[in-house]
Amino acid sequence: MFTRALTKPDGRRLLLYSRRPIDERLVAPSPSPEPAFPNAHLRWHPLRGEWIAYATHRQHRTFLPPPEYNPLGPTIAGAPPTELPDGDYDAAVFENLFPTLTMEARDPPSLPVKTLPGIGVCEVVVFTRDAAGSLGALPLDHIELLVEVWADRYRTLGASAAIKYVFPFENRGVEVGVTLHHPHGQIYAYPFVPPVAARELAEQRAHLDEHGRGLVETLVAAELDGGARVLYAGERTAAFVPACARYPYEVWIATREAVASVADLDADGRADFARALKTVLLKYDGLWQRPFPYVMAFHQAPTDGEPHPEAHLHVELYPPYRMRDRLKFLAGSEIGAGVFTVDADPDGTAAELRRVEVSLG
Amino acid sequence: MFTRALTKPDGRRLLLYSRRPIDERLVAPSPSPEPAFPNAHLRWHPLRGEWIAYATHRQHRTFLPPPEYNPLGPTIAGAPPTELPDGDYDAAVFENLFPTLTMEARDPPSLPVKTLPGIGVCEVVVFTRDAAGSLGALPLDHIELLVEVWADRYRTLGASAAIKYVFPFENRGVEVGVTLHHPHGQIYAYPFVPPVAARELAEQRAHLDEHGRGLVETLVAAELDGGARVLYAGERTAAFVPACARYPYEVWIATREAVASVADLDADGRADFARALKTVLLKYDGLWQRPFPYVMAFHQAPTDGEPHPEAHLHVELYPPYRMRDRLKFLAGSEIGAGVFTVDADPDGTAAELRRVEVSLG
Repeated sequence: MFTRALTKPDGRRLLLYSRRPIDERLVAPSPSPEPAFPNAHLRWHPLRGEWIAYATHRQHRTFLPPPEYNPLGPTIAGAPPTELPDGDYDAAVFENLFPTLTMEARDPPSLPVKTLPGIGVCEVVVFTRDAAGSLGALPLDHIELLVEVWADRYRTLGASAAIKYVFPFENRGVEVGVTLHHPHGQIYAYPFVPPVAARELAEQRAHLDEHGRGLVETLVAAELDGGARVLYAGERTAAFVPACARYPYEVWIATREAVASVADLDADGRADFARALKTVLLKYDGLWQRPFPYVMAFHQAPTDGEPHPEAHLHVELYPPYRMRDRLKFLAGSEIGAGVFTVDADPDGTAAELRRVEVSLG
Repeated sequence: MFTRALTKPDGRRLLLYSRRPIDERLVAPSPSPEPAFPNAHLRWHPLRGEWIAYATHRQHRTFLPPPEYNPLGPTIAGAPPTELPDGDYDAAVFENLFPTLTMEARDPPSLPVKTLPGIGVCEVVVFTRDAAGSLGALPLDHIELLVEVWADRYRTLGASAAIKYVFPFENRGVEVGVTLHHPHGQIYAYPFVPPVAARELAEQRAHLDEHGRGLVETLVAAELDGGARVLYAGERTAAFVPACARYPYEVWIATREAVASVADLDADGRADFARALKTVLLKYDGLWQRPFPYVMAFHQAPTDGEPHPEAHLHVELYPPYRMRDRLKFLAGSEIGAGVFTVDADPDGTAAELRRVEVSLG
């Protein structure tokens, strides 16, 4: 993997990644010539016992721009600058112009609840220069490179003492609120272990202590044994609709054996992880012969300096549809009580996805 | 309050509530003449440590019927039967034809995760016979009657040994997935204390133990002291945009002093609660001069037979809009990590709502 680190005129970081050497003459553009001096703060929700991230400058961020301007595409000569230079590279990472968390955070307000500066990092991961592409449609070696990108960001962001958890994710589709359609994901680097990860890790730790075997390892083995919900069974990685799916087309991708993070995958592990991911995403798009929206969330070990023998890399995908053209809404029971209600049988949705034939190319 | 208990031809319960005596000749109709024999089961999510409710028969439930058929309106002579008789009553409660939880639940499947029968009750609360009305537009004494209805259901459902938590809520608007537009709410009676309530009660218990004063009491007093985010300050009840709002137009309605449930409100408490609720809902609808969607969630003491000195009745409203015509989506950070990201300043949204003048009639 070849990389180049550049600085934008407004001071933000840009990283280019490629399977080929990168032209040294490339310079980093920005849609915004001036430094943005973003600010952010955290407020404690005393009833839920969790931090909420406030970044009020985001309210007016770029929203569904016309097709002729794509801030995530390479800058076109004579047109307004985008976030990326024109040139030959495969993927890029840059600091979000409208971050929810920023290392510059300062002066949180005084309120009836505890507040803190919203320290952290929000990065955009551009998966490809092709605005019309998609993560699942990329060649396997390109997806392997993206796994290396996620690993690089995990190591680099996690090395900061301020960062306790590195969270790569992708929001795909207008159904989950996406404003820019160029294939991209994001990485949030939080100054705390976020609630979902903390809860999962606590359950994983308790299971490991009690059984001497990891919870995710046990679940993966059980799904592979049963087989009815399995979408991919590689040497190192499995993908399946879990028996406890909260979303009808929810899929988990997990290594068979515990691996703490993407940075702990070796070359074979990255290759098999890429095959699993591509298989799932092509099945999604093949199901209704159209782009399938989802939220993709990485779960890996915190970077808080503590040992995490319980951590086990897995990716959870939450698609918003409960059937073709019908969305699953999170409403009273889900967001008011925290109880997911599921209408679809995971065996049935898994069977639908299993029937979709895909070619990994 | 006058009440009548009826049984539908398919065996489901129907309760009528009125400020006036109810005609004894009314009989309970049903869109479905045959008993539905619903089934449901729970699956344990071992990573999140929570139960998921499965009811696969719900996938094909009634969906946006044409306007001439309204299952929540009174039955019209000569037309197909609805859920309610024609007659003079104010509100009605009946068992959901497509319940997520049912006292008949049996035979959960064997899976790699723990399962249980989906024991519980799902009721529909029809707020008024007027299909074109809304909860906030009802006269105060009608809303007071609804508070009595919620209290009656809390007492009656909570008296069952199987029911540990009674959760009234309203989903309003297509933006939160509502399929029937007749003004109505729902009540889920769960066989466990749901995760959000459990977490809030644990925080409330810890605060009470440490400070000798309730957490919600303390928060209400602080919001009333500051005043900038207060929408209603009655003798007994307050409504405000909380400092830790997760949704831009989130509002909490809470009694000033701890009251365990709606069933513990006296007549003055019910009246002030109704004024607070009506004030908030009219401000919502007045803000953009159109019906304002939201999820409304009641938080009260579990009915698990344990003492709950920490419980404090409050209602949280989660509107899906972050500004006019722009929805707040729950995506990667919210549903993948559990970290809400907020773009709006609660002081600003509270100021918008404070400026909306309302008449309680």
